[in-house]
Amino acid sequence: MGTWGKRGDMLVHEHDPYNAEPPLGALAGEPVTSADTFYSRNHGPVPEVDPATWRLRVDGLVERELELTLEDLRAGFAERTLPATLQCAGNRRAGLVAVRDIPGEDPWRGGATSTATWTGVALADVLAAAGLREGAEHVCFSAPDVSQVADPPQPYGGSVPVAKATSPEVLLAWGMNGEPLPRVHGAPVRVVVPGWIGARSVKWLTGITVTAEPSDNYFQATAYRVLPPEADPRAAGPGDGISLGPAALSCELLDPADGSPVPCGRAVLTGYAYAGQDRAVARVDVSTDGGATWAQAEVDAPDGPWTWQHWRLRTDLAPGDVDVVARAWDSTGALQPEHAADLWNPKGYGNTSWARARLAVAPPAP
Amino acid sequence: MGTWGKRGDMLVHEHDPYNAEPPLGALAGEPVTSADTFYSRNHGPVPEVDPATWRLRVDGLVERELELTLEDLRAGFAERTLPATLQCAGNRRAGLVAVRDIPGEDPWRGGATSTATWTGVALADVLAAAGLREGAEHVCFSAPDVSQVADPPQPYGGSVPVAKATSPEVLLAWGMNGEPLPRVHGAPVRVVVPGWIGARSVKWLTGITVTAEPSDNYFQATAYRVLPPEADPRAAGPGDGISLGPAALSCELLDPADGSPVPCGRAVLTGYAYAGQDRAVARVDVSTDGGATWAQAEVDAPDGPWTWQHWRLRTDLAPGDVDVVARAWDSTGALQPEHAADLWNPKGYGNTSWARARLAVAPPAP
Repeated sequence: MGTWGKRGDMLVHEHDPYNAEPPLGALAGEPVTSADTFYSRNHGPVPEVDPATWRLRVDGLVERELELTLEDLRAGFAERTLPATLQCAGNRRAGLVAVRDIPGEDPWRGGATSTATWTGVALADVLAAAGLREGAEHVCFSAPDVSQVADPPQPYGGSVPVAKATSPEVLLAWGMNGEPLPRVHGAPVRVVVPGWIGARSVKWLTGITVTAEPSDNYFQATAYRVLPPEADPRAAGPGDGISLGPAALSCELLDPADGSPVPCGRAVLTGYAYAGQDRAVARVDVSTDGGATWAQAEVDAPDGPWTWQHWRLRTDLAPGDVDVVARAWDSTGALQPEHAADLWNPKGYGNTSWARARLAVAPPAP
Repeated sequence: MGTWGKRGDMLVHEHDPYNAEPPLGALAGEPVTSADTFYSRNHGPVPEVDPATWRLRVDGLVERELELTLEDLRAGFAERTLPATLQCAGNRRAGLVAVRDIPGEDPWRGGATSTATWTGVALADVLAAAGLREGAEHVCFSAPDVSQVADPPQPYGGSVPVAKATSPEVLLAWGMNGEPLPRVHGAPVRVVVPGWIGARSVKWLTGITVTAEPSDNYFQATAYRVLPPEADPRAAGPGDGISLGPAALSCELLDPADGSPVPCGRAVLTGYAYAGQDRAVARVDVSTDGGATWAQAEVDAPDGPWTWQHWRLRTDLAPGDVDVVARAWDSTGALQPEHAADLWNPKGYGNTSWARARLAVAPPAP
């Protein structure tokens, strides 16, 4: 397997399944992430699906089962385009691994967060065409990529509650940043569930099943759950831990990079913060002395209700090691927790601790 | 002015305006709070409103202005009853005051959080009867209690966005725990906005005005905002800081009380956690060694989507000082921030830091 991104600078955690994130600097200052820079999280081989023969089956607790071609989707429903951030639940796992090892899981840095403008149709419209029957509570997504990581091995899947599935922002998308959706990002059609962990935005979608209960797929029932720290992840079964859905408030420093040498004097520190479903980033505090004192960053307005927000702090850096810390507040007044150690969990999800980096600030040129 | 609660053991912060909370132990293990134990937060004198002459005016961006009597409300709309927690945005301010003084604001402990079963009609139904006009974005509440705390002095008021105002859980309530709403809690009719800070649940409601912008009332535009720590609250103007709305995740130890002597041996530590709008409490960790080690408390299911959740930990306490710490996780995997110092703000809102108490555990009887 090769790399799927065109950019040679992707940080590839695994080639098969292909799991890669951009270096943090590639995200800095960019409200939209190009498709070849957008992180790629896969649980099995990247399938090759022929758009001409692709069919989407809609079944379960519906009035009418549907089998839709790509042309049916395009012609039968209103096209919608919206910007949305996707974030892997394992984003910033490296910070948890630094506390205690997490075998078998990729040590994502903060690059497993990216934003694109998605084009497709509203899942709500397709569900309305099928008609929900009484007892419909969840909408399950299925795909052809068989994961050997699952126990037992099975195709990737997941579900969201009907209330989210019928919200207008949830798309069945065939377009990304104005171009056809690339194969590695789920062509011909993927789900995009804005505001929720990336795991629910199922790629290479082939089936939608309306059910009374959440999906029993391994990646819904057993994985993507915050287990208590003392739990043995190999012994974890369906229903254990906190099932992740809406994304929790997070923040990352993008530029300068941790450990990088920077000149002394005027500097701009930049990053992103992301508040997930129903929240916005209201404030970002940045410290250049390890948290002793704080300044408020300039925070960009989100590009609609479903995107990250970039921030920047203009400051002066004195020579020596500079410990940068960044923390975000959301629109409810909630602040991120400080320490990765408090968030450590056996599968390494949800590292929403404060962002930290050490910069080596050079003395002035003689 | 006397006290308004019948219980002599209310902690009265001020008599006029009347501001009082129950001792934490009075809330312990009680899913529903009795009306005379329920905290009382007022900004002006408690008005006496004659239910016979009371009128509710509905105006602004509506198709039809309404003027409703209590009988119109009762007869014209479907009665609804639901349990909901209210929490003052100043709940646990004492923990912030301990970091740095906050002049002019009451040092609420964790008792400014209570739960009742409310009966009334859905605000959504009343708004539907009035008909929302194009551009309707906010629903403002007005009341007759004039506050001298406001700048300039003015009747209490506030607003919520239309999306929340038209959600079925927002009530115009005349009943509390199956009895008529007591005068101190807003008789004859108050708003109940479940999942949001208590400040939006306006008491002694007399007016509903649908607008394009949030209320310009002092308590919406200027107060109930998290200002940056360096801000001068006397200089704060409309729009400054983070305007609070949905409640943020919080947790409190209710029993045993901080500083109290307890016998050594088997003990049950109990408290509440509350996740606010669109979230539930998913886990509560409790430490009896100041945070060095943690155990998971048993957490009750909420009584519907809008209530706190009580928790308990059965443990053994050894003689000596025992530092209890409790922290909650919500259903998105978010964890509370640790330190009150990080949350400190000039008006003292939103102390959602971990709960802490020191118990004096007695040696065994000789």
